Amino acid sequence: PVTTSLAGVACGLARGVCRYFAAAGYGCLLEVPLRSGRRADVMALGAKGDIVIVEIKSGPQDFRTDRKWHEYPEFCDRFYFAVGDGFPEALIPGEVGLIRADRYGAAPIRDGPLHPLAGARRKAVSLRFARLAALRLQVTLDPPGAGM
Amino acid sequence: PVTTSLAGVACGLARGVCRYFAAAGYGCLLEVPLRSGRRADVMALGAKGDIVIVEIKSGPQDFRTDRKWHEYPEFCDRFYFAVGDGFPEALIPGEVGLIRADRYGAAPIRDGPLHPLAGARRKAVSLRFARLAALRLQVTLDPPGAGM
Repeated sequence: PVTTSLAGVACGLARGVCRYFAAAGYGCLLEVPLRSGRRADVMALGAKGDIVIVEIKSGPQDFRTDRKWHEYPEFCDRFYFAVGDGFPEALIPGEVGLIRADRYGAAPIRDGPLHPLAGARRKAVSLRFARLAALRLQVTLDPPGAGM
Repeated sequence: PVTTSLAGVACGLARGVCRYFAAAGYGCLLEVPLRSGRRADVMALGAKGDIVIVEIKSGPQDFRTDRKWHEYPEFCDRFYFAVGDGFPEALIPGEVGLIRADRYGAAPIRDGPLHPLAGARRKAVSLRFARLAALRLQVTLDPPGAGM
């Protein structure tokens, strides 16, 4: 019961992507609001503080109509698209990372280039990630309105 | 259903403490392992990155037998004890923060002194907090062994 507005196929792919990164030692969050007003589908935070954003594409149409993905790389060290079985790889620009995913897991096809964040941006994004994760956890463990 | 080894009274006080800090805009986690090997009962992370540790004391005996609390302040900007109704305030050293709590909330009696963490320590503690929060959230939303 992942609480997300990611619909149907995209929600399953996001789960697989999170399983992959969690197994690699990353903490993962879905739909992380960025200062730009956009939301990153998946954000992952590594043991050394490295920040990954993964944008889920449910199908070719979803990719073709996305005019905003260029805004994501400035909020992470590495950026990936994640797509499901049957998605035509050739559609995804060669200069970004690509992950093949399903509901149960994921595997990178290629890493995107590493563009290390500047210190102030890294600190701001990490702090946002940390507080959002704790807030969501608390809402899960001690839901508002439960009263007692 | 807060998953914690904090027992009985202490568990309730921890819930109240988390509600107080959450209402003040902090992200909160219970039982955060520190590099020292100890666990902070409650760690809270503020909007500006400030880190608070709260040690829960279920009663005078719990306080008197705690020989290790001096180790906590080096992992946070502010340190507090939290105690329940009827706990004799005079037992708690005047130089540390003190919070009165119950299952439903909490209120600070006095703030402890602010001892800002050095940059490297702050970064390490914040990163630990962020990854632990995301990991616990993921275990809640997509529990291992659920399979499908």
